[in-house]
Amino acid sequence: MKKVAVIMGSDSDLPVVEKAIDTLKSFGVPTEVHVFSAHRTPVEAAEFTRAARDNGFGVIIAAAGMAAHLAGAIAANTTLPVIGIPCKGPNFDGMDALLSTVQMPSGIPVATVAVNGAKNAALLACQILAVEDKDLQEKLDNDRKSSADTVLSKDRTVTAKYSS
Amino acid sequence: MKKVAVIMGSDSDLPVVEKAIDTLKSFGVPTEVHVFSAHRTPVEAAEFTRAARDNGFGVIIAAAGMAAHLAGAIAANTTLPVIGIPCKGPNFDGMDALLSTVQMPSGIPVATVAVNGAKNAALLACQILAVEDKDLQEKLDNDRKSSADTVLSKDRTVTAKYSS
Amino acid sequence: MKKVAVIMGSDSDLPVVEKAIDTLKSFGVPTEVHVFSAHRTPVEAAEFTRAARDNGFGVIIAAAGMAAHLAGAIAANTTLPVIGIPCKGPNFDGMDALLSTVQMPSGIPVATVAVNGAKNAALLACQILAVEDKDLQEKLDNDRKSSADTVLSKDRTVTAKYSS
Amino acid sequence: MKKVAVIMGSDSDLPVVEKAIDTLKSFGVPTEVHVFSAHRTPVEAAEFTRAARDNGFGVIIAAAGMAAHLAGAIAANTTLPVIGIPCKGPNFDGMDALLSTVQMPSGIPVATVAVNGAKNAALLACQILAVEDKDLQEKLDNDRKSSADTVLSKDRTVTAKYSS
Amino acid sequence: MKKVAVIMGSDSDLPVVEKAIDTLKSFGVPTEVHVFSAHRTPVEAAEFTRAARDNGFGVIIAAAGMAAHLAGAIAANTTLPVIGIPCKGPNFDGMDALLSTVQMPSGIPVATVAVNGAKNAALLACQILAVEDKDLQEKLDNDRKSSADTVLSKDRTVTAKYSS
Amino acid sequence: MKKVAVIMGSDSDLPVVEKAIDTLKSFGVPTEVHVFSAHRTPVEAAEFTRAARDNGFGVIIAAAGMAAHLAGAIAANTTLPVIGIPCKGPNFDGMDALLSTVQMPSGIPVATVAVNGAKNAALLACQILAVEDKDLQEKLDNDRKSSADTVLSKDRTVTAKYSS
Amino acid sequence: MKKVAVIMGSDSDLPVVEKAIDTLKSFGVPTEVHVFSAHRTPVEAAEFTRAARDNGFGVIIAAAGMAAHLAGAIAANTTLPVIGIPCKGPNFDGMDALLSTVQMPSGIPVATVAVNGAKNAALLACQILAVEDKDLQEKLDNDRKSSADTVLSKDRTVTAKYSS
Amino acid sequence: MKKVAVIMGSDSDLPVVEKAIDTLKSFGVPTEVHVFSAHRTPVEAAEFTRAARDNGFGVIIAAAGMAAHLAGAIAANTTLPVIGIPCKGPNFDGMDALLSTVQMPSGIPVATVAVNGAKNAALLACQILAVEDKDLQEKLDNDRKSSADTVLSKDRTVTAKYSS
Repeated sequence: MKKVAVIMGSDSDLPVVEKAIDTLKSFGVPTEVHVFSAHRTPVEAAEFTRAARDNGFGVIIAAAGMAAHLAGAIAANTTLPVIGIPCKGPNFDGMDALLSTVQMPSGIPVATVAVNGAKNAALLACQILAVEDKDLQEKLDNDRKSSADTVLSKDRTVTAKYSS
Repeated sequence: MKKVAVIMGSDSDLPVVEKAIDTLKSFGVPTEVHVFSAHRTPVEAAEFTRAARDNGFGVIIAAAGMAAHLAGAIAANTTLPVIGIPCKGPNFDGMDALLSTVQMPSGIPVATVAVNGAKNAALLACQILAVEDKDLQEKLDNDRKSSADTVLSKDRTVTAKYSS
Repeated sequence: MKKVAVIMGSDSDLPVVEKAIDTLKSFGVPTEVHVFSAHRTPVEAAEFTRAARDNGFGVIIAAAGMAAHLAGAIAANTTLPVIGIPCKGPNFDGMDALLSTVQMPSGIPVATVAVNGAKNAALLACQILAVEDKDLQEKLDNDRKSSADTVLSKDRTVTAKYSS
Repeated sequence: MKKVAVIMGSDSDLPVVEKAIDTLKSFGVPTEVHVFSAHRTPVEAAEFTRAARDNGFGVIIAAAGMAAHLAGAIAANTTLPVIGIPCKGPNFDGMDALLSTVQMPSGIPVATVAVNGAKNAALLACQILAVEDKDLQEKLDNDRKSSADTVLSKDRTVTAKYSS
Repeated sequence: MKKVAVIMGSDSDLPVVEKAIDTLKSFGVPTEVHVFSAHRTPVEAAEFTRAARDNGFGVIIAAAGMAAHLAGAIAANTTLPVIGIPCKGPNFDGMDALLSTVQMPSGIPVATVAVNGAKNAALLACQILAVEDKDLQEKLDNDRKSSADTVLSKDRTVTAKYSS
Repeated sequence: MKKVAVIMGSDSDLPVVEKAIDTLKSFGVPTEVHVFSAHRTPVEAAEFTRAARDNGFGVIIAAAGMAAHLAGAIAANTTLPVIGIPCKGPNFDGMDALLSTVQMPSGIPVATVAVNGAKNAALLACQILAVEDKDLQEKLDNDRKSSADTVLSKDRTVTAKYSS
Repeated sequence: MKKVAVIMGSDSDLPVVEKAIDTLKSFGVPTEVHVFSAHRTPVEAAEFTRAARDNGFGVIIAAAGMAAHLAGAIAANTTLPVIGIPCKGPNFDGMDALLSTVQMPSGIPVATVAVNGAKNAALLACQILAVEDKDLQEKLDNDRKSSADTVLSKDRTVTAKYSS
Repeated sequence: MKKVAVIMGSDSDLPVVEKAIDTLKSFGVPTEVHVFSAHRTPVEAAEFTRAARDNGFGVIIAAAGMAAHLAGAIAANTTLPVIGIPCKGPNFDGMDALLSTVQMPSGIPVATVAVNGAKNAALLACQILAVEDKDLQEKLDNDRKSSADTVLSKDRTVTAKYSS
């Protein structure tokens, strides 16, 4: 199976990014995790990205906050699908990171998820790899069903307790 | 090759969505185009989506404005990758559609692109299909190179004309 | 009397939604409470809604956060009045939920109240049922009067203590 | 049948409000239209509202822009359901009117629709009156179905023309 | 000397409003404090305001949060200068109250100060009364001078401690 | 009668500011109009302001756009009441000017009106001068009444034309 | 004298950027103009920047819109002062570009000017070069004085025409 | 070497500003620190600024919150480069201060850094002084390299710990 690279702009993003790593592992997707800064280590970030497809990666997830250029800087150096996680920084509730990640110019897409939406970034990576992978499709479908079951079980509890 | 579905919430989104359709065609990706409203035709939107993988689709693109629920409503009914295009409506410059599309709850990702970013939605769909398709990879790489050449040619013109 | 359905997108919304349930009970309005997710249990949410009028409901209240599609997804499947409570999520102070709830396209209205405005959602449901129900009208009028009396009593205390 | 009052804060809101009036008429709902300003004619606005239920009204729609106090000022004087239409003013795309209309304090709800959402305000008024009116229910259901048919017919045209 | 009325929409605003009361007292301005809600006690708020000039008031300060209609509702019933304090509510950092207070329609001004800017509201009331009151002018000028002296004394401390 | 100074940061603000000048003239208030920039002519702006009270001014109105420092810069140099008009600039619909004008620090109030709210700035200046001027009070009251009459006349027209 | 590089992300930014070029020329500062995209030509943008100091540049100005990464991408590759001009794009009035440009992480500053503030970017570049250049200082001081004179001349015209 | 002036609008900004002071000291740049308020001590702020170049300053850093006029008021009185730090105040996460600092009118630039971006303000000041100072250039380059090394070392740790 192709690997997923999870890159964060700073190790202070780890508490958010860990949910992506855990989700990828729970689906059995091989994952390589990196700290590369678009601004502090631009050379290494670009080098890793340019070699990513040849090194067996199928998707890259990039997480960054504030003027979150990381996902865009990654996307500029590959035609692999790049998923951006805008991280909530000290101000603006992540709106700066969201706009910096999603408002990419024509030609260089970044697949953006919610602010701090690390779990969905990992699920999206799995969905992309699952397009040609029946096993992974099945795992995703089962996960979806079990998530629905959880909601329906809570529904029964809540209905019983609160209705009048 | 797997097909891409392009769904818009209203045919008033066509001027935006046409750029996605044209881009998909220029890459030779088979495309099926639909108008389904999450609110006016919820049944048909759900039925189409539930059958999409079996009907040969690999990616779904959904475009909608205002309280843009379409991409999320599609994503709720499939584990195929779903790409959301937030369309600029009469107010808020598309911020309502952006937040409604990108701020999906944990479990149901939508790969969101820029407001009115239809071309990038199509490129992202191609990148996803290209993960296991060398021909499409090559087309994407060539497109990237020719886009760089255009910039560099403009650079030479502008440098010559404006420097002092 | 017709019943009110109170639906929340996740049981994490219960602390907000409980104020709606309590208010409905205090007015003696029969209430049925559910957890249905527009994205995780779209089928069940739609089925409940399509049958709601025949099952004796007069109003549906839907509470959700982030890309709060729930109220709209409910409204898409019924012509009963649907009241939306945008819930404050982890970011943007509920602005994402507010815009996702209120900016509905022409044809499918959602009666939106303030962010986390669960008590007002319940009062609005009562006002709707009271249009043809004199007893409920009277209860609403009495509640309004007693709320005014509370303000006026505070006015006397504050005037006495702080004026100079 | 109970009447609907449509009140606008200024006759400059007429181009928006007309869609509400037209929709109410198309459903055969008796409608009385007024221009009352919360700030320039506070006495008249309050007097009309206090007498509204006794004068045969079942719902009040209030449309205003900028610091849109009108719907709240109406709601302060009645326990009838009050629907607020935030109108787009010269600045902020109607965000000022939206927040002024929807962020009502606990105790005094305003059922808020989208910025300039006059048609939905009228449909919501009809839905409220239809809770106890089978004829109106049927008209609403038919309207919903014909709106779905329009979307599906457009879907066929677009699919035929744009798919490849 | 004419009196200043300080009105708050809810006694939960007291922690903010107390700074206005204290400031008015420190300048020796007679002050009357009230709790009136634009929505819960509209009649009393209007009655107080209509009689305010005859009752010896020269300025009215109104503080409210969320859909902060209070200052506008006061201003609608008098031609006395009305100062609005937008109070920070549970969401949006007071932006809802700021826009509801400041974006008044042509004809009915509200002199708006910063979110929670109660001290400045009181100083502005004093400045208004001081237009024709030399003693109050002098007090204001002295206050300004002593505030400048405080800054300059801090400047000396900071310069000595931090320069290099 | 004391004079009102109307200062604009740039003569490009004249189309907005003229409504303030016209309104002051219609109330017979002596007015002196200036162009002073807080940034391009800081010395002249400060000198004018420091001498304003002695030169017979009772109120200063300041209009500026973008990083609208003018009203604050004026207020820093006088204890006269200063009214700020945030002007809509090329971006952000005047939100930059509104926040720059209204969010003044404790100690230096600026009485802020709506974006481009020049007429209300002039009315507020009149209200301030009218605190001790019965003639001006009467003019303001008459203006208010005639504005109400206009609304009520429009109400009759609209009711007749649109009700059904 | 050291040169100033003016880089734009796309030649569609030329109408904005030309004001910077013209201003630099009017101060006799040698200028080299380029079109480099952070995303379409990341290699060339980085190479130019890494060599910029050795090639005689003293300041770099970078202009870009939407997810405006250009100034940050330049700043990541040099310790020369980098000035960012956020350009207004098709949505959000340039707020996306402003946040993407100004919210840089600790360690990599970008000197940000107003949205579309090209003239000020050029003046700032001149101010930086003038720190050690008396001639340029004098030109800047003269420019400032003549700009003040223009304001004061407009002041006289406006005072004469509009005061009463 | 030329000195850097660090001015804050209030000593409550010290916790933010100290990072700028520490950074300047770590680069051996002579620094003078002041508390001057644009509004409470306008005269002293202007006098210090007008004499700054003659007193050996090369750059001025100004930090302020809310209606942050300080950097602009400084810039109005000198043609030295002025760097603005928008400080986060009690509301709006510093958006008020950011817009008040960055949206300067044509002619008077302020080099704006991120909200609370004091370290970057100091680095930018060093970059400006380093344009003609090889020693300082080298220190900046070394600092940049060591910051990259820190990231790369974290990368190795994270890769080892989290990849699978």
